Amino acid sequence: MTLDDLRTPCLVLDRTILRRNIATMAAALGRHRVPLRPHMKTAKSIDVAKLALEGQSGGITVSTLAEAEYFAAHGVADILYAVGITPQKLDAVARLNAGGTDIAVITDDLDTAMAIAAHPVPPRTLIEIDTGEARGGLAPDDDRLTGIATRLGQHLAGVMTHAGHSYAGRTHDDMRRIAEAERAGVVRAAERLRAGGHTVPIVSMGSSPTALHAGSFKGITEVRAGVYMFGDLFQAEIGTHGIDDIAVTVLASVIGRRPGALLVDAGGLALSKDRSTEAAPKDYGFGLVLDRSGRRSYGDAIVRRAYQEHGLITSDPVHPIELSVGAKLRIAPNHTCMTAAAHDRYHVVDGTEQVVAVWPRINGW
Amino acid sequence: MTLDDLRTPCLVLDRTILRRNIATMAAALGRHRVPLRPHMKTAKSIDVAKLALEGQSGGITVSTLAEAEYFAAHGVADILYAVGITPQKLDAVARLNAGGTDIAVITDDLDTAMAIAAHPVPPRTLIEIDTGEARGGLAPDDDRLTGIATRLGQHLAGVMTHAGHSYAGRTHDDMRRIAEAERAGVVRAAERLRAGGHTVPIVSMGSSPTALHAGSFKGITEVRAGVYMFGDLFQAEIGTHGIDDIAVTVLASVIGRRPGALLVDAGGLALSKDRSTEAAPKDYGFGLVLDRSGRRSYGDAIVRRAYQEHGLITSDPVHPIELSVGAKLRIAPNHTCMTAAAHDRYHVVDGTEQVVAVWPRINGW
Repeated sequence: MTLDDLRTPCLVLDRTILRRNIATMAAALGRHRVPLRPHMKTAKSIDVAKLALEGQSGGITVSTLAEAEYFAAHGVADILYAVGITPQKLDAVARLNAGGTDIAVITDDLDTAMAIAAHPVPPRTLIEIDTGEARGGLAPDDDRLTGIATRLGQHLAGVMTHAGHSYAGRTHDDMRRIAEAERAGVVRAAERLRAGGHTVPIVSMGSSPTALHAGSFKGITEVRAGVYMFGDLFQAEIGTHGIDDIAVTVLASVIGRRPGALLVDAGGLALSKDRSTEAAPKDYGFGLVLDRSGRRSYGDAIVRRAYQEHGLITSDPVHPIELSVGAKLRIAPNHTCMTAAAHDRYHVVDGTEQVVAVWPRINGW
Repeated sequence: MTLDDLRTPCLVLDRTILRRNIATMAAALGRHRVPLRPHMKTAKSIDVAKLALEGQSGGITVSTLAEAEYFAAHGVADILYAVGITPQKLDAVARLNAGGTDIAVITDDLDTAMAIAAHPVPPRTLIEIDTGEARGGLAPDDDRLTGIATRLGQHLAGVMTHAGHSYAGRTHDDMRRIAEAERAGVVRAAERLRAGGHTVPIVSMGSSPTALHAGSFKGITEVRAGVYMFGDLFQAEIGTHGIDDIAVTVLASVIGRRPGALLVDAGGLALSKDRSTEAAPKDYGFGLVLDRSGRRSYGDAIVRRAYQEHGLITSDPVHPIELSVGAKLRIAPNHTCMTAAAHDRYHVVDGTEQVVAVWPRINGW
C-alpha cells in the first residue's frame, strides 16, 4: 500500500521523524540523568508508546480514562492520569488498579483528597502544583498544600506541575527561565511537604519545551512531555524543534481549483480549528501545505480557511500550485494533539510513500 | 441511567428540542411546498436521520464517504454526497450504487466530469454552482458550465449551490437577500443548461439560515440544511433559532476550583477549538455554561480557555458558580458540527436528566 491507495483525508505518521524526535528528547534528558514519563495524550497509540518507552523506565502519562484503560489493556503497568480526578472517576481507576495496573491520579482539592482517602481502593495521588500556568494546581507556598497531604496520608505519592505557559515563550532563554521556575516551584512544594513530615517520592514536571530547554532538573524525579514525539507548526515556531521535525501530517486530495487557490478535502474536522499559530511569529492559518512527499512546501501556501470538510488553500503568485482534482498533498498541522484526535489511525511511513503499518489511536473519554 | 451515571465529557442530545427544531424547518419549507433533503453532516446518526426524514421524501445529504456508507447500510436509498468528488473516490461510490443505493455526487471541474463519464459505473452528478460563497462551484454564467454538462451527458442530474456566506448575515433581511441570490443563481444556472438542451431535474439549494429565511423557492426542487436540527450558539446569534433551541450540549464535570473560575474536564477536544462566535455580536469563548438541566445559564459564565482536556470557566462576580469538584454542568457549543464530531455517541434525553437512549455517530472518512 502507498499513499496513493489511501482514502483522504487521513493521517500520515513518518516513523523516521518520530524516532528522531524521541531520540532527541531521550538525549536531552539523558544528559541530566532524569527519567522520562512520556505523555501519550498526543499519540494515544500503544505502537508509539513502545517507541517512546525505549530506554525509559516504563511509566507513561495519560489525559483520559479511555487512554488509561487502553494502555492498561496493552500491558502498561505504571500510568499517571494527569488531569484532575473527580470522586466519580475513582471507581474506574480502582477497577484498573484491581486488574494489576498502577494508576496514579492528581488533585489540588481538599474535598477530593478526602474522597480519595475514603474510597475503598484509594489510588496513589500526586498533588498538582501551579508554577505559573494559572490553570490547575496550588502555588508551592499555598497553605492548603499540607492539609491535602495530610488527608491523603499514605496515598500521597508526590507532587507534579506542568509549565503549559512555556508555550508563550519564544526564545531559548524564555524557555530556560520558565523551566527553572517550574523546577524550583515543584521542588519547593516537595520540600515544604517533607518538612511537614510527609514522604514525597515523586517530584514530576514537564512540557515539551521546558523538558528540552531546562538547564537543571535538580530535585526532579521524572519529566513528562508528549507533543515532542510528533511536533507541529506551533512547536516549531517556539523553538521546540525544526519545521522538518513534524512527524504527523494530514494527507488530503484536491477537490477544486480556482485562480490562486485550491480546495482540498481536509477542513476543520480533519485539521481541527486550532489557530495557535495566530499568536506565533508566523500565522500558518490552519496548516502549512506540503507536497505528497511531505518534504517540500509550495512557497507560502497555507490552508487559509477551514470549513467542515473543505480546506481553502491560497498560494503566493510566485509559487502557484498546479495540481489536478484528485492530486494529493500533505498538510502540517498547527497543533498535532488536536489534529490527530480527529482521526482513528495512523498510516505509518518511513520517509517514503510506502505505508509500512497502520496504527490505531484511542480517542474519546 | 441518568446524567449522573455518565462519564464526562460526553454529548447530551435533548430529543424534545431536536423534534421541535425539525418541526420548525419542516413547517418553514412546507409553507413553500419545497421538499427537504436533510444534511446529515451535523448529526451523522441514523436515529436523527429518521426523525429528520419524517414527512419528507426520504433523500439525505452527506459530507463524507463514511457517512454515505453508513447511511446506505442503514437503508437510506437516496443520498447526495455534497463535497466535490475526486476520480479516486468514484470506485467507493460505485460500490454503494451497485449495492442498490443511489448516491449522487457533485463537481465543478471539467477533468473530473470526464473521469465520471469514463467510469464503468458513473454516478448521477450535480454541477456545483457558486452563488456568493466563493468556496466551490462555478458562477451561474461561467462559460465552463455547459462544457461540464456536455461531458456528463446522461449522468447530469442537476445543479446545486450552498450559500455558506449566509453565516455572515446578521438580520432577517440579510438572510432573505442572500437566500434570494442563492435561489436566483442556481435557477439561472439550470435555465442556461436547459436552454442548451440539457435535462436538469434537480435544482438544489440550502443552508440552515437561508432555508428558514427565504422568501421564495421558485424553480428550486429541494432544499438542503443540517445544523438546524441541533442548533448552536453561532446559529442563535445569527437568528436561525433561539438560544433555548440548542439541542446538543457537552456534559462536563468540575475538576478544579479557584476564585472566579472553575476548571472542567471538557477542553478543546470535547468542545472543539471552533471560535465562530468571536465574529458574532456576543463572543461565547468556547461555549456557554449551563447548569446540569441545560436550562439555566450562570449569568455570563463561558468557557474562556480551552486546553486539550481542560476548560477554564470564568463567571461574573454577580453570579459566581458555586460547585464542588465532581459536580456536573452542561456547555452549549459555538458550532455543533465541530463539537459533536469529537464524540462517538449521543446520550439522549427528553427534557429531563433521564437518559432514554444512546445513539451512535459515524465519524471519520
